[in-house]
Amino acid sequence: MPSLITFGETMLRLSPAPGELIETATELDFRTAGAESNVAIAASNLGLEATWCSKLPDSPLGRRVTREIRSHGVSTNVTWTDEGRQGTYYIEQGNEPRGTSVIYDRTDAAVRTATPTELADGIAFDSVDAWYTSGITPALSAQLRETTGSLLERAQAAGATTVFDLNYRAKLWSPAEARDACRPLLESVDIAVIPARDARLVLEESGSDQEILRSLATTYNPDIFVLTQGGNGAIAIDAAGTRYEQPVFETETFDPIGTGDAFVGGFLANYLETESVSRALEYGAGTAALKRTIDGDLAVVTPAAVERVIEAAGGDGGIDR
Amino acid sequence: MPSLITFGETMLRLSPAPGELIETATELDFRTAGAESNVAIAASNLGLEATWCSKLPDSPLGRRVTREIRSHGVSTNVTWTDEGRQGTYYIEQGNEPRGTSVIYDRTDAAVRTATPTELADGIAFDSVDAWYTSGITPALSAQLRETTGSLLERAQAAGATTVFDLNYRAKLWSPAEARDACRPLLESVDIAVIPARDARLVLEESGSDQEILRSLATTYNPDIFVLTQGGNGAIAIDAAGTRYEQPVFETETFDPIGTGDAFVGGFLANYLETESVSRALEYGAGTAALKRTIDGDLAVVTPAAVERVIEAAGGDGGIDR
Amino acid sequence: MPSLITFGETMLRLSPAPGELIETATELDFRTAGAESNVAIAASNLGLEATWCSKLPDSPLGRRVTREIRSHGVSTNVTWTDEGRQGTYYIEQGNEPRGTSVIYDRTDAAVRTATPTELADGIAFDSVDAWYTSGITPALSAQLRETTGSLLERAQAAGATTVFDLNYRAKLWSPAEARDACRPLLESVDIAVIPARDARLVLEESGSDQEILRSLATTYNPDIFVLTQGGNGAIAIDAAGTRYEQPVFETETFDPIGTGDAFVGGFLANYLETESVSRALEYGAGTAALKRTIDGDLAVVTPAAVERVIEAAGGDGGIDR
Amino acid sequence: MPSLITFGETMLRLSPAPGELIETATELDFRTAGAESNVAIAASNLGLEATWCSKLPDSPLGRRVTREIRSHGVSTNVTWTDEGRQGTYYIEQGNEPRGTSVIYDRTDAAVRTATPTELADGIAFDSVDAWYTSGITPALSAQLRETTGSLLERAQAAGATTVFDLNYRAKLWSPAEARDACRPLLESVDIAVIPARDARLVLEESGSDQEILRSLATTYNPDIFVLTQGGNGAIAIDAAGTRYEQPVFETETFDPIGTGDAFVGGFLANYLETESVSRALEYGAGTAALKRTIDGDLAVVTPAAVERVIEAAGGDGGIDR
Amino acid sequence: MPSLITFGETMLRLSPAPGELIETATELDFRTAGAESNVAIAASNLGLEATWCSKLPDSPLGRRVTREIRSHGVSTNVTWTDEGRQGTYYIEQGNEPRGTSVIYDRTDAAVRTATPTELADGIAFDSVDAWYTSGITPALSAQLRETTGSLLERAQAAGATTVFDLNYRAKLWSPAEARDACRPLLESVDIAVIPARDARLVLEESGSDQEILRSLATTYNPDIFVLTQGGNGAIAIDAAGTRYEQPVFETETFDPIGTGDAFVGGFLANYLETESVSRALEYGAGTAALKRTIDGDLAVVTPAAVERVIEAAGGDGGIDR
Amino acid sequence: MPSLITFGETMLRLSPAPGELIETATELDFRTAGAESNVAIAASNLGLEATWCSKLPDSPLGRRVTREIRSHGVSTNVTWTDEGRQGTYYIEQGNEPRGTSVIYDRTDAAVRTATPTELADGIAFDSVDAWYTSGITPALSAQLRETTGSLLERAQAAGATTVFDLNYRAKLWSPAEARDACRPLLESVDIAVIPARDARLVLEESGSDQEILRSLATTYNPDIFVLTQGGNGAIAIDAAGTRYEQPVFETETFDPIGTGDAFVGGFLANYLETESVSRALEYGAGTAALKRTIDGDLAVVTPAAVERVIEAAGGDGGIDR
Repeated sequence: MPSLITFGETMLRLSPAPGELIETATELDFRTAGAESNVAIAASNLGLEATWCSKLPDSPLGRRVTREIRSHGVSTNVTWTDEGRQGTYYIEQGNEPRGTSVIYDRTDAAVRTATPTELADGIAFDSVDAWYTSGITPALSAQLRETTGSLLERAQAAGATTVFDLNYRAKLWSPAEARDACRPLLESVDIAVIPARDARLVLEESGSDQEILRSLATTYNPDIFVLTQGGNGAIAIDAAGTRYEQPVFETETFDPIGTGDAFVGGFLANYLETESVSRALEYGAGTAALKRTIDGDLAVVTPAAVERVIEAAGGDGGIDR
Repeated sequence: MPSLITFGETMLRLSPAPGELIETATELDFRTAGAESNVAIAASNLGLEATWCSKLPDSPLGRRVTREIRSHGVSTNVTWTDEGRQGTYYIEQGNEPRGTSVIYDRTDAAVRTATPTELADGIAFDSVDAWYTSGITPALSAQLRETTGSLLERAQAAGATTVFDLNYRAKLWSPAEARDACRPLLESVDIAVIPARDARLVLEESGSDQEILRSLATTYNPDIFVLTQGGNGAIAIDAAGTRYEQPVFETETFDPIGTGDAFVGGFLANYLETESVSRALEYGAGTAALKRTIDGDLAVVTPAAVERVIEAAGGDGGIDR
Repeated sequence: MPSLITFGETMLRLSPAPGELIETATELDFRTAGAESNVAIAASNLGLEATWCSKLPDSPLGRRVTREIRSHGVSTNVTWTDEGRQGTYYIEQGNEPRGTSVIYDRTDAAVRTATPTELADGIAFDSVDAWYTSGITPALSAQLRETTGSLLERAQAAGATTVFDLNYRAKLWSPAEARDACRPLLESVDIAVIPARDARLVLEESGSDQEILRSLATTYNPDIFVLTQGGNGAIAIDAAGTRYEQPVFETETFDPIGTGDAFVGGFLANYLETESVSRALEYGAGTAALKRTIDGDLAVVTPAAVERVIEAAGGDGGIDR
Repeated sequence: MPSLITFGETMLRLSPAPGELIETATELDFRTAGAESNVAIAASNLGLEATWCSKLPDSPLGRRVTREIRSHGVSTNVTWTDEGRQGTYYIEQGNEPRGTSVIYDRTDAAVRTATPTELADGIAFDSVDAWYTSGITPALSAQLRETTGSLLERAQAAGATTVFDLNYRAKLWSPAEARDACRPLLESVDIAVIPARDARLVLEESGSDQEILRSLATTYNPDIFVLTQGGNGAIAIDAAGTRYEQPVFETETFDPIGTGDAFVGGFLANYLETESVSRALEYGAGTAALKRTIDGDLAVVTPAAVERVIEAAGGDGGIDR
Repeated sequence: MPSLITFGETMLRLSPAPGELIETATELDFRTAGAESNVAIAASNLGLEATWCSKLPDSPLGRRVTREIRSHGVSTNVTWTDEGRQGTYYIEQGNEPRGTSVIYDRTDAAVRTATPTELADGIAFDSVDAWYTSGITPALSAQLRETTGSLLERAQAAGATTVFDLNYRAKLWSPAEARDACRPLLESVDIAVIPARDARLVLEESGSDQEILRSLATTYNPDIFVLTQGGNGAIAIDAAGTRYEQPVFETETFDPIGTGDAFVGGFLANYLETESVSRALEYGAGTAALKRTIDGDLAVVTPAAVERVIEAAGGDGGIDR
Repeated sequence: MPSLITFGETMLRLSPAPGELIETATELDFRTAGAESNVAIAASNLGLEATWCSKLPDSPLGRRVTREIRSHGVSTNVTWTDEGRQGTYYIEQGNEPRGTSVIYDRTDAAVRTATPTELADGIAFDSVDAWYTSGITPALSAQLRETTGSLLERAQAAGATTVFDLNYRAKLWSPAEARDACRPLLESVDIAVIPARDARLVLEESGSDQEILRSLATTYNPDIFVLTQGGNGAIAIDAAGTRYEQPVFETETFDPIGTGDAFVGGFLANYLETESVSRALEYGAGTAALKRTIDGDLAVVTPAAVERVIEAAGGDGGIDR
């Protein structure tokens, strides 16, 4: 089983029932969510040996986070602290035209002060196959910008495949700030996942998605670029310049939150076994499709279920295990 | 902030979960609902200074009603009594072909004996900008027919804009009874909202909706007529004979109950500020579209949300505040 | 299996969760309850062939009532009608000093117009072993006073053991009204269950409970009198003048509502098999003790469970089956 | 009221909320379900005098089953036993592409040892109008294969209309086993309901659905064959060779489980009154359409509701009562 | 109706079900709570015209707070802001020896920057009968220390009765900090409520409770001192040196949180009408007893209910209305 | 961190809400429970590196079990199989005199065929500090009797401290069967936990608890015997013959299920660190007291919480970390 470490903030997620509003709710669902733990959970459910690494307040709230992550078989490597809050977010899903609204309550989260030294404690970098962080993490504080870069470098130096999903969040920083932070990070990244919208907004790319993909591949360091296109699927290019296209699998969506993380988790679970970008894209898309039928951020899936989705759509199907 | 007073019956609303039936349910959602409090709530959420005026049993059931109404910032001017019941209704929403069914349990409701004198107590008619009642109220008792008329007259005499939504309910009276009661009421009304179906059934109008609108404007006293057309939106005519058309905004409906009241509440919230029928119609339609995404009768909305709906649909957007 | 018919009103019961108030609740438990159906249900769960007889609105609310009653194996002999309401009550249980409060909402209940003729339709009086009504039924309307008496007479004439629980409810009538109605009814009753408090208040008895019991036995017609004493248990006297005492079995109470009905149901289930007053009292007390551990009005018990309670308390135990 | 007896296994049904997974659920809905009790419940709700006959463990789990069945007015004729389990199944409904998954947990169910003698005890075969079993029952054990056949024969000999729904379940037996068991059973059947898919797979029929229907009618003994075609409705042929076609009524599906049983229950409720195959098919389709709007396996419907569905679709409507 | 204004922070309150833990909960109850809004709500439910004054984030979370407060008839005078968080707290109630634990998450709450000027906007100090703040408010920030003092002075100058409950919270500041802040505040206070424990810890009083009461009365400015003694009730002294003792009313406690605030709310509701310290203490104790039977922080009570508690305990009973 | 492996069956646990009955419930809580996973979870929450080892069906039900166990930081070493069921139990908690009733549904559980070879796969016996099984495991099948013994021997041989809790379950085997199976097992056990009742019933000991303890110590092989005495606490003896007494800590019990397992888990968590029997007994009692305040079988506790319980009762307190 290949191993994956992800690093980032995980929040508590509070949400009213369908059709209900935060303003009038008297009961909230209580879950955990965060790009990096979402990816670790999807990957663990699909067979990787995954570890999530972060800093949390030493409180029932912090332990609530690790309990849910561990329930999916993910190991947790946590720096416990008495300083800082447990990040939280409220999500109110609404039909159109109301739409979904999110209220982040992550000010002063404990993770913001996490240093490379404290996070690295307990990690055997030599035996890590892959390391993943999203672009949300460096957006959270100056310290985390440094920590993200430092750990990516260290993981890459130790031989891990480093993976970065740009995942720009306008509520956290400006495109210019994101640009300044992410460009240097891409130096230590082997696989970059970049939403087409962010490529334009943050990396100032232009042209068609295919043109952007080529431009990224010639401008930046990563071997593999996956350009995600929302409802249109994803396209990718590898070090050899081979191009890949992956449409989305048709779904009746129950809850779209976490789709991108499920895609990345599925992609990595497969890629680290098969080293086939095409199969990994298909696997990521299958994982993402299943996620959308499930309440909450998490891809609670099995390899067999992902493979059934791929096969039903006429795809190649799975990792030959 | 312009002020609005609404007068009518508000019931307790009991409903099983989606897919469940009253016959087999073991738990019911417990809310309040009534055309006039629905309108006051929508208007209050959108910035009016709204008051709901009624008569209730002096019991936890009656107080359950005022608590929910007040939670939306609406003032309550209630005559408390030891006589009469708290009106109640059961609603079981069902997909097609089962459809939604409603069981009214409003026999002997305390409000049925409300006199103009007791309701007027505590109201400063001079400072009321608008007064609203629906056609449900006069349908409830002979006393309420008299009270409705008397209060509309008094409000109009004091300078308020009087508003009446015909809102015919076949379970309460016959078209002929409604006709006899509502025609005289229209004498004291400045803005009449009339469902196209009721214009035909109750007011015995015929022809196309546009023809009916013209006929209403020439036959009855109000300055403004809004003819609501269900899924087709609404058309209106003002005192100057100018005509308006307002389509509905596209929605994925979660719960359609209360759409009409949300429309009126939104219309009034805007009209009392802008005196623009076209903007008010748009605002009403935006409020109604949001309501349909929310469980229960109530339009828990903000001006900003309504304006986003209008703008997303290419409309003019909002009250310039 | 001996057979029992009970006749009376059954209501829908709406209640908030423990610690919650009707005034602020957003969800209510939804059950059915009524002295006579409670007795039939307890007796059916304990092995009698029980039938509940009443008049209900032909609506999902009326059907909600029969579904729950039938689920306990009780047959229903219902006159369905389009006139009148489904009686309802709200119950808010509170710790001391708040206490439990009940709001009856039984105005205009359909059952109030039930005539002897319509209720008797479908009942084979010849094969009925026992007939039960509580003093709540004649309190509901003049018609029901007549109907209660007429059916007790007819059942007694046909050879059934007739049973009447005085069960005075101050919210329904005055002691004087109850006295005038119940004294004549006692003429057609074989077994009278009378709360000690009601013997004093309604029947104007005085002295110690034992003195009252003797006085009742000499004044009124029934063969057996059971004087219930709340937390002190019950005492009884039979036609031969033999006296019985039955303490309550110790319980940790979860919900006390329905204790008296469970006692009567258990008493009858046993008495109709054993014709032993002492065993029947014990059985009734065991059934009542179990009921108090259960949420709602209903004694969902088995003979084996009742017998375990009796044996654990050193009693004789059960019906020899 | 015609009478119907159904015989088969009924399970407890455990299911997580929409969007939730069994793997992560902390609460499950708890209901009962089984083809034969589903049919009896639909038929009882539509006016038949229905009895469900089976063998259950003498435990709260077994009693949970009879309570829910009885709540729909169905009588239960149960052999209680201390041997064997209460069958259970878990159902997790999922949007596409996840789909619905079912986990049967019916090993060693008490019903598997039910003999004709014990089940027949308490049944007055002479007064039974119809007898129904599905092809699930003989699939459960060798004993039940024998019992199913024996009871069908006895019912037919006593003059009942015998009804069999082939309802092949691949998780219980192979097509060949089903074929060997069902062909002899069809000898004692008056009305056979056969899914088109099962006609091909189990009975080895081929050709178009209409060709299969003719072939069944010429090969096997029943007077009436109903070939169900899933989303395409059903076709039928009677003893006179008359053919019938019944499309499905359009529905927004909430829960599809139990559709087929609702169809059969509705068909029988009507056919036993009208002896009209065309009306019965329409009635069955109306019942099935309503069932799909309801959570759970059970068709909690009224004759009036079924007739409204048929009339709304321009059908003939109902049984003339 | 006398009027009361209270000023302080109100938080969202998140709590798992009884017996459940935050660490493993998947659903949380969602309410609002804060000493000053608790007092306003109790007082409003008991007949005062109450207003709660604070600063909140302009978001669904902030509006969730005002909606619940308004539902109790309390007016809200809120400064809405885009800066700062909505304070939150988690409460996990546990039987002994686990006990109740509270996690405050009120860092950077919007209220911390509230200035006297912004809060005073919209308040007619001339017509305010009483002004209340607890010692929690000045503990929240240096700005709030200044604001609390400034508003108390202004209210007192305008003729209001000013009320201060010391209510020391060790999680917010040290006893020395509290001492430095609260001593000057007491200069502008007419009625001081001081927990006996805080008198010792914060105000460095010593001796018996009665000795402390005398010492407070001679040392500080307020006319009336109420020394609360937890389970032992309260003692008080007025400007004339008259002493009062009030035991607690016996209760079966469901949820103790908010008892002190209910006591103060009940005390003020009565005192502002009767100007009788003894009656007000009794009224406060009755309100507190009822609160303890209710889930959540809020005293949802009626004057009649409080008076019943007092009378049942042989007290004087209520305000003569 | 010392390591602990536990081996046994874990079931799914289904339970109605307080006051509700299985017979009438419509919703069940869904958790996992099993003596050996309960012990591992308590120990893991208290700081041990715990692993639970078993055999499960490869289905969502089996995965439901591992997810909950893992959420507490326990590793799972599971043999997944397509044969056999997932054991289940229903628990209905009732106040006295109803009491709690349990329905085991563990027939044919997958674990029953677990062999020493398949379970040992993946376990590094050399690095295991302690190995725990309860007497429930050998009661489940002949294979498990053999497997239990074989693994205890192997663990002991590899240097682990082996621990066995006799935990006799009358529903699984007779005292004689238990005696025959458990006596040989005690040969390979270092620490034996034996309920006083089982010492008498299964091991045929007699006399006072202290006499039994001495007799056990002279008759059987283990170094340490802990005799648990229910509400009276526990007594113990070590290899040196030193005796220990540990009373229970006073608790308000919410749910008593799992108390014994919590005691063992707490005992081991402490003993493996301190090697002090007296401290370990105290720690076990503290863990057990906390468990009783929590819904479900699991001791979701922290070392700090256990130490607070001990200190509050005047104990020594904790492991010096």
